[in-house]
Amino acid sequence: MKLTRLSRLLALACFSAITIASAQAGSALVLLTDFGTADGAVSAMHGVAYGVDPTLHISDLTHQIPDYDIWLGAYRLYQTANYWPQGSVFVSVVDPGVGTSRKSVVLKTKGGRYFVGPDNGLFTLIAERDGVEELREIDENVNRLAGSGESYTFHGRDVYAYVGARLASGAIKYEQVGPMLPKESVVKIAYQKAVRSGNTVRGIIPVLDIKYGNVWTNIPKALFNELQIAEHDKVQIRFLHKGKQVSKIVAPFEHTFGGVAKGQPLVYLNSLLDVAVADSQGNFAAHHKIESGVDWEVEISKVGKAAK
Amino acid sequence: MKLTRLSRLLALACFSAITIASAQAGSALVLLTDFGTADGAVSAMHGVAYGVDPTLHISDLTHQIPDYDIWLGAYRLYQTANYWPQGSVFVSVVDPGVGTSRKSVVLKTKGGRYFVGPDNGLFTLIAERDGVEELREIDENVNRLAGSGESYTFHGRDVYAYVGARLASGAIKYEQVGPMLPKESVVKIAYQKAVRSGNTVRGIIPVLDIKYGNVWTNIPKALFNELQIAEHDKVQIRFLHKGKQVSKIVAPFEHTFGGVAKGQPLVYLNSLLDVAVADSQGNFAAHHKIESGVDWEVEISKVGKAAK
Amino acid sequence: MKLTRLSRLLALACFSAITIASAQAGSALVLLTDFGTADGAVSAMHGVAYGVDPTLHISDLTHQIPDYDIWLGAYRLYQTANYWPQGSVFVSVVDPGVGTSRKSVVLKTKGGRYFVGPDNGLFTLIAERDGVEELREIDENVNRLAGSGESYTFHGRDVYAYVGARLASGAIKYEQVGPMLPKESVVKIAYQKAVRSGNTVRGIIPVLDIKYGNVWTNIPKALFNELQIAEHDKVQIRFLHKGKQVSKIVAPFEHTFGGVAKGQPLVYLNSLLDVAVADSQGNFAAHHKIESGVDWEVEISKVGKAAK
Repeated sequence: MKLTRLSRLLALACFSAITIASAQAGSALVLLTDFGTADGAVSAMHGVAYGVDPTLHISDLTHQIPDYDIWLGAYRLYQTANYWPQGSVFVSVVDPGVGTSRKSVVLKTKGGRYFVGPDNGLFTLIAERDGVEELREIDENVNRLAGSGESYTFHGRDVYAYVGARLASGAIKYEQVGPMLPKESVVKIAYQKAVRSGNTVRGIIPVLDIKYGNVWTNIPKALFNELQIAEHDKVQIRFLHKGKQVSKIVAPFEHTFGGVAKGQPLVYLNSLLDVAVADSQGNFAAHHKIESGVDWEVEISKVGKAAK
Repeated sequence: MKLTRLSRLLALACFSAITIASAQAGSALVLLTDFGTADGAVSAMHGVAYGVDPTLHISDLTHQIPDYDIWLGAYRLYQTANYWPQGSVFVSVVDPGVGTSRKSVVLKTKGGRYFVGPDNGLFTLIAERDGVEELREIDENVNRLAGSGESYTFHGRDVYAYVGARLASGAIKYEQVGPMLPKESVVKIAYQKAVRSGNTVRGIIPVLDIKYGNVWTNIPKALFNELQIAEHDKVQIRFLHKGKQVSKIVAPFEHTFGGVAKGQPLVYLNSLLDVAVADSQGNFAAHHKIESGVDWEVEISKVGKAAK
Repeated sequence: MKLTRLSRLLALACFSAITIASAQAGSALVLLTDFGTADGAVSAMHGVAYGVDPTLHISDLTHQIPDYDIWLGAYRLYQTANYWPQGSVFVSVVDPGVGTSRKSVVLKTKGGRYFVGPDNGLFTLIAERDGVEELREIDENVNRLAGSGESYTFHGRDVYAYVGARLASGAIKYEQVGPMLPKESVVKIAYQKAVRSGNTVRGIIPVLDIKYGNVWTNIPKALFNELQIAEHDKVQIRFLHKGKQVSKIVAPFEHTFGGVAKGQPLVYLNSLLDVAVADSQGNFAAHHKIESGVDWEVEISKVGKAAK
């Protein structure tokens, strides 16, 4: 009898311990904003998330998205999301329209990751690459930090960090976020998709690898491979801004930066396995006055034997 | 007999597991400094705290306080502290007087949060808003990183991070920090408190919302409400530096930035529910040459019907 | 019988809980790069590490090492490593040679800390101060993020963060990193070690305390003490760039910045207990046009009574 009671007690104790311990292996909460880290805004978001669940793993993707640059925010999500495990929750706040009628949503991708934030184009690239499993509008009547109802300007703290933390910690299920929206209603920014026509592939410069001045494209390895370019083969690259040529170069396709001499240009596959152009240990973008965005196009062509 | 012994073993094992797991739900340690993150100073602080307790949740409020700007440090604590749960421990190091006779203290607020750092004015706004429950001087004889006695210049690492981590982890109780000081002895920076006189409220510009150029005031919602301003009503705002008028504008009171056209000024309640002034999607402070600090005053008046 | 089975179940449950909970007290993973935090590179590294073990403590040393500045990366490791507990794993990526033949290694110090990264000089100061217990080359055939084999340019994410996380979490033992290399083969940057000759000690300026403009040297307290300088005693300091004198001053040796008036120079022991020179609340380096690096030397001499 005594042992039975003790065993019950033990069972309870053990299961409690397991529950607490398991929670810590829960989903990560990853934050992206254009707030910078010089003031207290990001820390207030961390505090709200920690208050929801002290065992949450909270990580900063970046808070240095240029002010209101939704496109760049979209690209940073695209660049990093798949390196985080399934179930991870991304809270993204680049929100020029805070306080207007733009919707607040949580998008679930086919890969099982969650994206919390304003539905203003931030989820364009994630939605296109990973596919939308489901889209829900946040019901702020039930999913809002207690006592924050009078604050209209900081959804990142009062709504997004709070909902994201509740979702990551398992305090709510995805279905409890709010009502479903049509998947195809997610707001997308228009841009030139990568295409091939004969010996040429076209795309855009979605972003620069700023720190090093490398030019990244949205042309994936698979499409580039259709040109049948071997390592060390030369290709021609044209850069256009609003349809007007800014620069034209010929450079070899290399697997590594060491494939050319210091300062020389090369074409390579970047860390996302998209085509990129760089000067080895130099700043290609500054050198050729290349910038990035949906109005910056790139055109890569196979070079005939004679031109080699 | 056998079962009893096994049960005892199990009980021990379970309680150990619970103890370890529970520790991880302990108090957060939140760091604020003017060190920047370009060198190793902040990481040394993290390492010391992690060494005290590997399960501590360590978070960075900001390390970008301008050099020696105690006032701004005080404001960042005021801005964020209440978004962290009761029991949280804030280690704050903006310390032009390191190595002089300024005291090292841990302040406990009435809300049950702890503030560790030099007693040089950093806790002015926290003490005033949240109230001082108790103030204790750190006894460095017992609360100092082992082996750091010969270092005189890095209290942030050797004393504050160490004591903060010990307090947050429960390794010491608050009473073990050191001897009690009179609550009212906490060093405070003098500044103009928010006041109303007839149809006008006065206060200071404690800080700019730098990233966006919005002007924040220390005038709280409750005081502003005494003017009985409805949404969309216009108010007059005067900005003064050392008593001299720098700018005077008339702008509507709005709940959201979408309430006015892009580039137009508005008065609103910021994320702390204090009165603020901005240009919608513009930089009000740069536009009107407004800066911040205790010598920057602001005066907001109800505008008569005729002036609308 | 029933109880026995229940007890076995309980034992299993408890040990699981303990295993999970204990993992969280595992080794820290500390990241240092020259990537900055404006893009997604660092977050991809965090995601990979978190994917290896969601309970890992992941901390950023700094990501603001100037591009390709291996020396400064080496110094930041030297500055911080010993404030992290034994067993900590440092992933360091300052890697101008990514994709070339430079080796990828994990160095274990005599103090039991692990350093993961390219063998390009990054581990110079750690190896010299702490001693090399063992050096192993990373076998990328077994220690590489699954599916990353086609990416050649981001070893920080695909190899170093992955191996570091596996080592810190205990998923692999140090021996499983790859084959042993001769300890003395670790690549080291050459520089002038600190030496004494009579009443003068010589060394270099490995780094500036940038934020404050203080000049740090590689002259340790023990060597400086051989000059038998008491507090407040004056010393002469010469600064040389490539052997040519840039500045010469006389300043007192002080324990704290408060020992001299604001703006006045002083010699002190910095937070690593190495000799340093500063203007109290001023920027000594800017004032005297001093920079840092292996070609910046410093010479400190005892001043005769007459010169005081």
